Amino acid sequence: MALVVQKFGGTSVADVDKIKNVAAKVIREKKAGNEVVVVLSAMSGETDKLIALAHKATEFPDEREYDALISTGEQVTVTLLAIVLNSLGYRAKSFLGSQVKFLTDNAHKRARILSVDTEIIRKELKQGTIVVVAGFQGVDKDNNITTLGRGGSDTSAVALAAVLNADQCDIYTDVDGVYTTDPNICNKARRIDKISYDEMLEMAMTGAKVLQPRSVEMAKKYDVPIYVKSTFSDEGGTLVTKEDKDMEREILSGITYDRDQAKITVVHVPDKPGVAAKLFTPLSQQNIIVDMIIQNVSLEGFTDVTFTVSKKDLTEAQKIIQKTAETIGAKKVEVDDQVSKVSIIGVGMASHAGVAAKMFSALADEGINIMMISTSEIKISCIIQRKYTELAIMVLHDTFGLEKKSS
Amino acid sequence: MALVVQKFGGTSVADVDKIKNVAAKVIREKKAGNEVVVVLSAMSGETDKLIALAHKATEFPDEREYDALISTGEQVTVTLLAIVLNSLGYRAKSFLGSQVKFLTDNAHKRARILSVDTEIIRKELKQGTIVVVAGFQGVDKDNNITTLGRGGSDTSAVALAAVLNADQCDIYTDVDGVYTTDPNICNKARRIDKISYDEMLEMAMTGAKVLQPRSVEMAKKYDVPIYVKSTFSDEGGTLVTKEDKDMEREILSGITYDRDQAKITVVHVPDKPGVAAKLFTPLSQQNIIVDMIIQNVSLEGFTDVTFTVSKKDLTEAQKIIQKTAETIGAKKVEVDDQVSKVSIIGVGMASHAGVAAKMFSALADEGINIMMISTSEIKISCIIQRKYTELAIMVLHDTFGLEKKSS
Repeated sequence: MALVVQKFGGTSVADVDKIKNVAAKVIREKKAGNEVVVVLSAMSGETDKLIALAHKATEFPDEREYDALISTGEQVTVTLLAIVLNSLGYRAKSFLGSQVKFLTDNAHKRARILSVDTEIIRKELKQGTIVVVAGFQGVDKDNNITTLGRGGSDTSAVALAAVLNADQCDIYTDVDGVYTTDPNICNKARRIDKISYDEMLEMAMTGAKVLQPRSVEMAKKYDVPIYVKSTFSDEGGTLVTKEDKDMEREILSGITYDRDQAKITVVHVPDKPGVAAKLFTPLSQQNIIVDMIIQNVSLEGFTDVTFTVSKKDLTEAQKIIQKTAETIGAKKVEVDDQVSKVSIIGVGMASHAGVAAKMFSALADEGINIMMISTSEIKISCIIQRKYTELAIMVLHDTFGLEKKSS
Repeated sequence: MALVVQKFGGTSVADVDKIKNVAAKVIREKKAGNEVVVVLSAMSGETDKLIALAHKATEFPDEREYDALISTGEQVTVTLLAIVLNSLGYRAKSFLGSQVKFLTDNAHKRARILSVDTEIIRKELKQGTIVVVAGFQGVDKDNNITTLGRGGSDTSAVALAAVLNADQCDIYTDVDGVYTTDPNICNKARRIDKISYDEMLEMAMTGAKVLQPRSVEMAKKYDVPIYVKSTFSDEGGTLVTKEDKDMEREILSGITYDRDQAKITVVHVPDKPGVAAKLFTPLSQQNIIVDMIIQNVSLEGFTDVTFTVSKKDLTEAQKIIQKTAETIGAKKVEVDDQVSKVSIIGVGMASHAGVAAKMFSALADEGINIMMISTSEIKISCIIQRKYTELAIMVLHDTFGLEKKSS
């Protein structure tokens, strides 16, 4: 008898009929003789609706209350699934973060999981109960409701699989696995059978939407193999697991993109120690995440500093950086909100020479100018003009022959 | 410094703008130097929406899950109010039933309150926090979410006022108090300044919608004076409190009606011991509440038994009683779903002779036939044809001179 954790996302539980479809998948695992723990997101769109309510009340809602408000979305789906399962003759019980003591720190809206009380869950499993846990939510030590941040339900599922030492963690979503790139953009995109934690992490961080980076990090830390599957089809699937020799044979695993990027350049910055700190500290204080940073070589004591932020943070970032620029005596601030980040990811990159050169040439051949570059051991990201995003992906997918699995 | 409990119903918190209006009323109490505990219902219509979801899932939803599902409505309003209050510079915290240990028995959908942990609330009040508690919900000893039944938020508020020994319990609603009868039906209806617990209880039980019977019962038990006020106006208000000599001067306090009535007659029942039990036990087993019961005098060993049930229970009740009737050898079952119950209520009734006679004559003068009568010390109820409901109310209101307060 295996212990299986199944997680279903918002589109999989979007209405009562879809929840009945989820119930069928849950029952299949149960009938196969397994112990089953289910983790659910809120109905798609529901969390956004609750957030809109909070923001209709005020611009900056109290975070404790905000978390208690938006956590109701998962409470609705887990109880409905438990209702459906019971009506079909399967003993099922829903549990909120507070009920399974999903203990987190008190950083509202982005809480980190500290521990989970497995005793309650194990007791129920032993009695044959299907345990349905609300994703995305927890409680701090004072019993205040916390949430884990966007996509936190993936993290909830992986955390449960880890503490329960589950045999399997299935993340059901509206696609049938992880692809070499977005199939909506490139029709040659191929589903990947197996991918390493590190590659998946880079893909998630550079734009692939299928899994949240934090859940992949946690899966890696506790070595929980994740199986990404479709809720709506039994075909396909991608296993996210430890690196093995199969994976190394591929140069690239995938190509990702992120259109939600904006570029800010601070021109003619006096090149003195502490200038970078002066530029970026005020941004981080406002919780604005800076992604790529480039500093040109200094020329006659002055330099240009370019960095990217998420488009939604641009207005706020620009306001802050304009003030800083004046303080430190920079010449001006330039902004470009028409950029994208295109990234190639692969563990094979480290052992194959010339991958970067090949990428740059391919883009150059199409007349695509590279504005910024950032690299890690298994990833190269380029900032390009947004209008070339699709072209860049097609070209790179062809150049690296991703449509075919190497054998 | 007084401790004030304020309860706002569903229409008072129907959207964010209305919640801002509620916040103004809360702040007014706070600014007056009081400690404030607020109890909220769900947005009007929200609980019905959640119930519809549950019933879309299955006809008879698991009750544990059902309670956890429908309790989300109050979670939304209490967090939104706390968000608004905080945004206006007032420290406020929302608390769910589970967070203030609103301990109940485990009778889901109709749980009874056992205790409330006042320590958490008192600690917050001492720090100047406005405490916003979700009405309608509690937890059983195993931390399962329970609900108190329809209108349970009134009961939550009175219970909190009782355990906190509050100086005042204000029930805000969409009308400005308790009226001698429904002003929508009788334009001579007069707002009552002060009414006794017993009269209010009879009025609530016989059709007045403004307060739930259970909350009045609890208010009486713990002697919590309730002030019924309008959320949308500062005028008016009705105090529900202990009986005093002012009240006795009035013969009648009010006239109520209930159109949600159906009458069932079992004809030619063999008049043997145990027949009543045989008739009514199967009904109570299906949770069907029987209101009035009349048994005719026996004639040659046979009798007729007539009783009333809520209209929504009629189909089910008829099915059950038909079966019983056959078993006990009754002749037939007759049903009338076109009836209403009209009641007159007043503590003065006990000390004033001829009230019943006056009621019956007034109805007779209008040609209204009385089908069934039931009385208590302070109430007389008559079942009449539904089409005469409005006429009966107008006539009785005039007959007993309710438009004028006696002095």
